[in-house]
Amino acid sequence: MLLNSILDPIIERALQEDLSGGDLSAEACIPESTIARAVAIAKSPLVVAGGQVFARVFELLGAGSVRFERVLDDGASAKGEREPIWRLEGPARILLMGERTALNLVQRMSGTATLANACVRAVPAGRATRITDTRKTTPGLRYLERYAVRVGGAHNHRDNLGSAVMIKDNHIVAAGGIAKAVERARAYAPHTSKIEVEVTSLAELDQATGAGADVIMLDNFSNELTIQAVERARGLVPRPILEASGGITLERIAELAAIGVDVISVGALTHSAKAADISLDFVLDRTAG
Amino acid sequence: MLLNSILDPIIERALQEDLSGGDLSAEACIPESTIARAVAIAKSPLVVAGGQVFARVFELLGAGSVRFERVLDDGASAKGEREPIWRLEGPARILLMGERTALNLVQRMSGTATLANACVRAVPAGRATRITDTRKTTPGLRYLERYAVRVGGAHNHRDNLGSAVMIKDNHIVAAGGIAKAVERARAYAPHTSKIEVEVTSLAELDQATGAGADVIMLDNFSNELTIQAVERARGLVPRPILEASGGITLERIAELAAIGVDVISVGALTHSAKAADISLDFVLDRTAG
Amino acid sequence: MLLNSILDPIIERALQEDLSGGDLSAEACIPESTIARAVAIAKSPLVVAGGQVFARVFELLGAGSVRFERVLDDGASAKGEREPIWRLEGPARILLMGERTALNLVQRMSGTATLANACVRAVPAGRATRITDTRKTTPGLRYLERYAVRVGGAHNHRDNLGSAVMIKDNHIVAAGGIAKAVERARAYAPHTSKIEVEVTSLAELDQATGAGADVIMLDNFSNELTIQAVERARGLVPRPILEASGGITLERIAELAAIGVDVISVGALTHSAKAADISLDFVLDRTAG
Amino acid sequence: MLLNSILDPIIERALQEDLSGGDLSAEACIPESTIARAVAIAKSPLVVAGGQVFARVFELLGAGSVRFERVLDDGASAKGEREPIWRLEGPARILLMGERTALNLVQRMSGTATLANACVRAVPAGRATRITDTRKTTPGLRYLERYAVRVGGAHNHRDNLGSAVMIKDNHIVAAGGIAKAVERARAYAPHTSKIEVEVTSLAELDQATGAGADVIMLDNFSNELTIQAVERARGLVPRPILEASGGITLERIAELAAIGVDVISVGALTHSAKAADISLDFVLDRTAG
Amino acid sequence: MLLNSILDPIIERALQEDLSGGDLSAEACIPESTIARAVAIAKSPLVVAGGQVFARVFELLGAGSVRFERVLDDGASAKGEREPIWRLEGPARILLMGERTALNLVQRMSGTATLANACVRAVPAGRATRITDTRKTTPGLRYLERYAVRVGGAHNHRDNLGSAVMIKDNHIVAAGGIAKAVERARAYAPHTSKIEVEVTSLAELDQATGAGADVIMLDNFSNELTIQAVERARGLVPRPILEASGGITLERIAELAAIGVDVISVGALTHSAKAADISLDFVLDRTAG
Amino acid sequence: MLLNSILDPIIERALQEDLSGGDLSAEACIPESTIARAVAIAKSPLVVAGGQVFARVFELLGAGSVRFERVLDDGASAKGEREPIWRLEGPARILLMGERTALNLVQRMSGTATLANACVRAVPAGRATRITDTRKTTPGLRYLERYAVRVGGAHNHRDNLGSAVMIKDNHIVAAGGIAKAVERARAYAPHTSKIEVEVTSLAELDQATGAGADVIMLDNFSNELTIQAVERARGLVPRPILEASGGITLERIAELAAIGVDVISVGALTHSAKAADISLDFVLDRTAG
Repeated sequence: MLLNSILDPIIERALQEDLSGGDLSAEACIPESTIARAVAIAKSPLVVAGGQVFARVFELLGAGSVRFERVLDDGASAKGEREPIWRLEGPARILLMGERTALNLVQRMSGTATLANACVRAVPAGRATRITDTRKTTPGLRYLERYAVRVGGAHNHRDNLGSAVMIKDNHIVAAGGIAKAVERARAYAPHTSKIEVEVTSLAELDQATGAGADVIMLDNFSNELTIQAVERARGLVPRPILEASGGITLERIAELAAIGVDVISVGALTHSAKAADISLDFVLDRTAG
Repeated sequence: MLLNSILDPIIERALQEDLSGGDLSAEACIPESTIARAVAIAKSPLVVAGGQVFARVFELLGAGSVRFERVLDDGASAKGEREPIWRLEGPARILLMGERTALNLVQRMSGTATLANACVRAVPAGRATRITDTRKTTPGLRYLERYAVRVGGAHNHRDNLGSAVMIKDNHIVAAGGIAKAVERARAYAPHTSKIEVEVTSLAELDQATGAGADVIMLDNFSNELTIQAVERARGLVPRPILEASGGITLERIAELAAIGVDVISVGALTHSAKAADISLDFVLDRTAG
Repeated sequence: MLLNSILDPIIERALQEDLSGGDLSAEACIPESTIARAVAIAKSPLVVAGGQVFARVFELLGAGSVRFERVLDDGASAKGEREPIWRLEGPARILLMGERTALNLVQRMSGTATLANACVRAVPAGRATRITDTRKTTPGLRYLERYAVRVGGAHNHRDNLGSAVMIKDNHIVAAGGIAKAVERARAYAPHTSKIEVEVTSLAELDQATGAGADVIMLDNFSNELTIQAVERARGLVPRPILEASGGITLERIAELAAIGVDVISVGALTHSAKAADISLDFVLDRTAG
Repeated sequence: MLLNSILDPIIERALQEDLSGGDLSAEACIPESTIARAVAIAKSPLVVAGGQVFARVFELLGAGSVRFERVLDDGASAKGEREPIWRLEGPARILLMGERTALNLVQRMSGTATLANACVRAVPAGRATRITDTRKTTPGLRYLERYAVRVGGAHNHRDNLGSAVMIKDNHIVAAGGIAKAVERARAYAPHTSKIEVEVTSLAELDQATGAGADVIMLDNFSNELTIQAVERARGLVPRPILEASGGITLERIAELAAIGVDVISVGALTHSAKAADISLDFVLDRTAG
Repeated sequence: MLLNSILDPIIERALQEDLSGGDLSAEACIPESTIARAVAIAKSPLVVAGGQVFARVFELLGAGSVRFERVLDDGASAKGEREPIWRLEGPARILLMGERTALNLVQRMSGTATLANACVRAVPAGRATRITDTRKTTPGLRYLERYAVRVGGAHNHRDNLGSAVMIKDNHIVAAGGIAKAVERARAYAPHTSKIEVEVTSLAELDQATGAGADVIMLDNFSNELTIQAVERARGLVPRPILEASGGITLERIAELAAIGVDVISVGALTHSAKAADISLDFVLDRTAG
Repeated sequence: MLLNSILDPIIERALQEDLSGGDLSAEACIPESTIARAVAIAKSPLVVAGGQVFARVFELLGAGSVRFERVLDDGASAKGEREPIWRLEGPARILLMGERTALNLVQRMSGTATLANACVRAVPAGRATRITDTRKTTPGLRYLERYAVRVGGAHNHRDNLGSAVMIKDNHIVAAGGIAKAVERARAYAPHTSKIEVEVTSLAELDQATGAGADVIMLDNFSNELTIQAVERARGLVPRPILEASGGITLERIAELAAIGVDVISVGALTHSAKAADISLDFVLDRTAG
């Protein structure tokens, strides 16, 4: 579920980009009274994400004159082959004016959901390893992309710099070591935020566990190092959450999950997902045209 | 050159997304007086785009306290191998707080510039074929992405629905044929806007040329059909601009350019470019830390 | 047709200007339950423009409590003499609170439509000369004013600086001549944008036609010079569009159209149109008052 | 003096309208390093208004790279004949990109100041009659237009519906008479706001004075009726301010002022002022071009 | 009555603050289809203010899916003891997501209304002394707080710095005395704005009355001085409005009103009112849960 | 440290509220060239918060013409007695125009810091009990108020509904018990967010600890119940954080801290803090005045 209060400004900005000077082609060629039906179809296999966004574009643009029907729910797999996802019926002008904006949004969202889903499916059966996004989101679209990640079956990492602590190399240097950095963070941050430490060696891992870090990110650890990290964490009470990150591929997801990390964070979910191949097919109403 | 009046709202929105609750980690661990130097480096080969955007993020965030130095200009090729692109010096907190937002922006811009450049270089020597983007841009980032396309050596297509006419199948159906659609468009649109018609067959091509279309988009034409289209257009005065579109790859760019189309439009430049691999390396000032 | 996505921010800003502190008079004197009917009337002859804007002001302000009826469509001529244009029925407070904002908008729009229509009617019968606006629009209201120009039967010039190329004296000086400026523009601008050159002499006209300009603006040409310009352009294939501009009056429109220019652009349509004389007459419901 | 906090959003919106897609012509033809000087000149007699607005457009657009010099202060009369008003020096691109937006603003402001000044000068010597604007301002530009009115030597009426009370016919009907309407308004409105009543007859005038109205607007009173109104008000303590309104021309200003009204409000100052004829002349720097 | 055009941006900002990252708890635990009923209750005695604001939060958040019922009107006294004020029925998620934002707004509004009402009731019977707010409002919430003041039975002071003149010590120093300051203000300000002068002694009071000030604020006058001030003003025609200000308590309101000042302005109404104790009680629908 | 990117929109909105119609008094009485010095003083004991906000109001309003000097840092205690906090020097008009907006902001911030500090000082020596705010912040000002809480020595609770999980009664009902609610939340929320459960009895406390809640809020527990809760949590590994909430006073803080809860959350810090008594004293420059 997306909230209109957060969603609408995103859509309105996109409509402003494309329509601040009207639509010369539609205004010239399409009578205002022409009614059309349109169906969004999947031209390649994909995981659907963004039905509410798609509908809302036409709701805002058409001031309620467009009827929307959901064929596939968010999270459903479309097999491609022009499988219908959503249907629209309303003024042909409105459908044409909103087509590009709506597709630009849902193609990105479905692309992210599809990639997220592929990552989730790469986790071997029986493993509870969680796939997450990162903060490497498209500026202005974080709310939608985090939603798409969840639709694909993956999870979100922290929302922003104020949601949780992530101690990286520079924080460590500035604070004078991992222990001091964790101590400062614990003293400063809300008691409801976890503290994550990014480590680059087993030695740092030990320091982080010693400091009581809630989550430890293994940055670009080889499989061998990851095995040792998992081993070292095993007996700890409370056991820190181990997160693998850096150079993640579908193959590595399978390996890392098998090794036993808890979380694998994948920047590509939001920074490099290919747009899903969704098109809008139209049927114009002849009697009205 | 990008205008701050258009650029700043984009950056401010991105900063709001990430920093509306502050930065727990930096505020906890980094003393306000610590100065740092940082260098943005290319970890893979790429075409640089977004220097001004990168600088502006820190200028807005740091209220003038950050010094920016440009090592590589926009449009330059970085060979990867950690080659420096831009340098920063200023409060460590500000550099860390702005890091993700700045990278999120320039990785996308440089990704688009890199892909655009690859497409341009795929055009055989001696051919003037123009590579262009489409309106398949990221909602909210069109201004930056169109700039990145140009930085990569490619060109822009129309800016939005009010800049030029593009007559597609639905406009044709609604207007009652290509000739009538072009006529309506010419009667309606500003005399400064060209009229483009999207055609799916040679018969439609003939109708479009007959109607005096300024630009004709050959939608998913095979090479064979494209050859015939180029042939038919050759003798016309004025000769319409021929634009190929649909399923464009680097290989097809070479073929289509050799055949002689004038323009090849590539949606992937903006909807599916992989983020360029740019990182920010820090050196914290020890004396102040 | 105007899009709420573009229109609403304009109206909301206007309402903010007038109502951010409430309406002392209406709140003091008008019971919340009083219902009123009101009719917008033309007190002088005018061409109606802005029915949708008028309705939308009260729709936004009254949250759906106001009923709107259109008596005259946009583009219709009202003869004055208190001829009804639009009718409203709803809470008297809402009608009074929105009255000034609504009138401020539609008086300007109808003023522009009326002047545009006068210009169009000044073109002699049998001439296809097009009257256009310019970019000399009221800051913040360009979308509405361009619409009003079309309602009056005139046409729009380019929407903004990114829609088409207009080469003026300074561009020519900087580029090193008309030929070089056109060449640079053709190399840079989208292939969907036309290139217009502003010329001040027949010699420049020849340079512009030689360079292949799509549109040539004859800047402040006398009738005699205009005659020669039309003559020189006649035989060219493709023939450039000739646009006359500068010091345009209704008399000159007739002369220039008779001479045979294609387009006459008139800055006054948007920068100096007199507000149309529209008032709002009220009948308060006695039973409810 | 105008406040940037109020002014900047107005300018930024105007720049967005014109430059959201860049400036094809300037970007194509003008090297980024070319420096230009420009001078804003008066081509017809006018009263200057908007120097700060003019400067601020280029300051925002050029990020401090443009030098501004004021030749004539706001309120000064320019005699026309290409008299210099303001000078600029900076990047030619920035000057060209901001030209239209800046002129669109200051032409309107100076147009209003010029008309306001003509009205003020129409008041016979020795009369203290005040000329004021109304709320018939351009939506979005009220702050600038009210300033321009003052620059022309005239005065402002109430700023908005929350600043002062203005009781009109509908308020009177709803409240059950002038006396009751004034009473309600006095009971409701801040003790710092005056109460004005619009009257259409001497009988209503008497009711308004009887009710203790602070200001009385004589709506479309003939000179004869106005003479009687002034007569009746003369002896009252406190004497209400008499404001004439409706169908005001320069001739009527002279008559009404001679008769002795205190205030004459003129809607045309802001709804129908002709744009002042200001142009921007450029000199491009040859060495840099 | 509050206008959505002014109210909605305030609510949307508040929702953005709390919900830009969604609601982890509700999304995790509450099925989208669960319906709930909720009732806002008064846990301590209070004057109700903000019913429309409360309803609008859920209307915006729930896109029309929430039913609102008003038990107590704005201005009614709730005795506490969990007395119902408003009822809601709709999706449990929406009710939970909006709860805090809605309560944050109405607790402040009702807190101000309650304090305002206490001040009004402190005025002795038979006295018409008016209690007013000041400009010491919460930044961003002035529109709501001024409304709440009126709901409590008190009045508003001037809305902002452009609504009326208030001459204080610094204006007097700069202008060269009270007489000169009043004269300048009368010459400059709209004829619809009153002129108030803040005085600190009887001598200044005399200067202000001599200058014809419409309102005189007695700044931190003792009761003895206030008595003399009222005495001196008594015979004047027109008699200036006397406003007491500074260090106002309920006790002093009684004394000052008895002495005979016209207005008592109380900054605490908006800067230091205690939030009213309103809670939201839920009943979740078992069948749907 | 506050970020201008988050701070400026708050200030600009506040300035718009007060200055959208200019400042009649200052414009009338204060020559534009008059320079003034002003000093913000504490009239009662308080903890200073908001120096950067105070400075920024005048920086934005005065476009850099105002010099700011910090006498007391944020977090310092001012003893009252007109102790100087900050000094300003610049155009008298700007200082007067910004005075109210600046004070409205810093009085609230310092009020919250002062109350927060009192709560922190109520914790007995040797106890590490943390005082925190809640989400009961002023709509639109959360960023500033959370900062003020920290300035006072207290801590922040979760920033918003997306930062951490807080399971309350309704979530428990909808999920079917505490264990299920925690399970759902753990499955859904980012692995970087802690899970807090609000409990109303020892039985619920046991369920929450059994479910592995990270934080447990004891809602309105008596001291006796709190003692038992602390006792039960003592032996657990990992031990959950215990947070006391509801009806918190300075006395109860001392008791609860002595009992041994980890956190005490206090809604009053932000919803009912009394505005700190800060005034601005002016000295106008005589020579310039």
